[in-house]
Amino acid sequence: MKKWIDAELKKNFQIEFHNENLLNEALTQASYVNEHPNRGLKFYERIEFLGDAVLQLIVSEYIFKRYPEMPQGKLTRLRAAMVCEASFSQFARECHLDRYILLGKGEEKAGARNRDSLLCDIFESFVGALYLDQGRDAVERFVHQVIFPKLDTGAFDHVIDFKTNLQEFLQRDGDADIRYELLNDAGPESDLEFEVAVLSNEQRLGTGAGKSKKIAEQNAAREALHKLRVKND
Amino acid sequence: MKKWIDAELKKNFQIEFHNENLLNEALTQASYVNEHPNRGLKFYERIEFLGDAVLQLIVSEYIFKRYPEMPQGKLTRLRAAMVCEASFSQFARECHLDRYILLGKGEEKAGARNRDSLLCDIFESFVGALYLDQGRDAVERFVHQVIFPKLDTGAFDHVIDFKTNLQEFLQRDGDADIRYELLNDAGPESDLEFEVAVLSNEQRLGTGAGKSKKIAEQNAAREALHKLRVKND
Repeated sequence: MKKWIDAELKKNFQIEFHNENLLNEALTQASYVNEHPNRGLKFYERIEFLGDAVLQLIVSEYIFKRYPEMPQGKLTRLRAAMVCEASFSQFARECHLDRYILLGKGEEKAGARNRDSLLCDIFESFVGALYLDQGRDAVERFVHQVIFPKLDTGAFDHVIDFKTNLQEFLQRDGDADIRYELLNDAGPESDLEFEVAVLSNEQRLGTGAGKSKKIAEQNAAREALHKLRVKND
Repeated sequence: MKKWIDAELKKNFQIEFHNENLLNEALTQASYVNEHPNRGLKFYERIEFLGDAVLQLIVSEYIFKRYPEMPQGKLTRLRAAMVCEASFSQFARECHLDRYILLGKGEEKAGARNRDSLLCDIFESFVGALYLDQGRDAVERFVHQVIFPKLDTGAFDHVIDFKTNLQEFLQRDGDADIRYELLNDAGPESDLEFEVAVLSNEQRLGTGAGKSKKIAEQNAAREALHKLRVKND
């Protein structure tokens, strides 16, 4: 089993642990240690404590820099959506960490391997072990593969209010006129699709579509922000 | 006022900001920005969001490494005692940050400058600004001056249970015999002073004194841990 995870980590994330003990510790639950009292094993909890803080900082810094107009309240909500049990347990599964957890028999039987709270812990402890073994840069590379792309695919869009962000972006240097215009509503009553454009000073900045006007406006603002940021880079 | 803080930071912490705007932003409350709407000022909240995560990680990593036998639950309690409003507001005062906060008139009148919640925020935002300006190493140096010495002077001892730590340390490699022995109880009834030694396998590891046997035992365990760690280094 040890070899499998080594091969997976190398293939999927170009990660090779120098100190294998750290990886073992990160994947070992207390129930397993209790069943093998003479092996001098350690369980993941201390490393998880560290990994949690590492993830908090890397995610905080990334969204702080990526969304320079986003006020603190929204940054906090976005971070809470990214750094939470639901997200981390999903990431743990995507990385197949669930397959390699060392569990006691009772916990295995009780279905702990599929328990979100354990998988969240294991994702944090894995990151903690990687941090101890290879430092922050290695964790950044990992998180840039596993977490940050989800910001682009819309996994956290429910907490990102693009209309407000666009308004803040355009009003940095004073007042700005912003207007949303319905371009089209097509389809049968039960399956309407709206298309909306966002304009500032009568210049079209972006368009968006969606099942409601609200969603279409959010998508238009999102496209506008993306274009403005590319232009500003 | 600007010059005063620059001089204080340089003298007390050898800190010189490259980007003064970051320091200004870290010390400016929203009420001040609102009173000066045309100056293009920013207030501290976003930088505070980042500083909070920076402090969490640096404190977590420090206690993780300093107390290698401390279980997660205790690490979490210790971190909570160090990274909290009561501690951070005290640190902000000790660093004289309170003197340099830019407040609106209403907030000034309402006593915000002495409000723990604001001082805590300002301590975090100051650290966030230092991190953005000079990176993690500069924050580490600052925190090693301002926060970590307090672990040695006992500011957080109420959350550190040294007896348990010593037990865990000695039992890493199997069972260990640990015994506390009362050496002395001296003084008048109302002002008794206890002196206690801690022994393992009949070897005296440390002694401690205190107003109760419990406190004396904690101090003896603390001395023993300190000596054992020095020996192990």
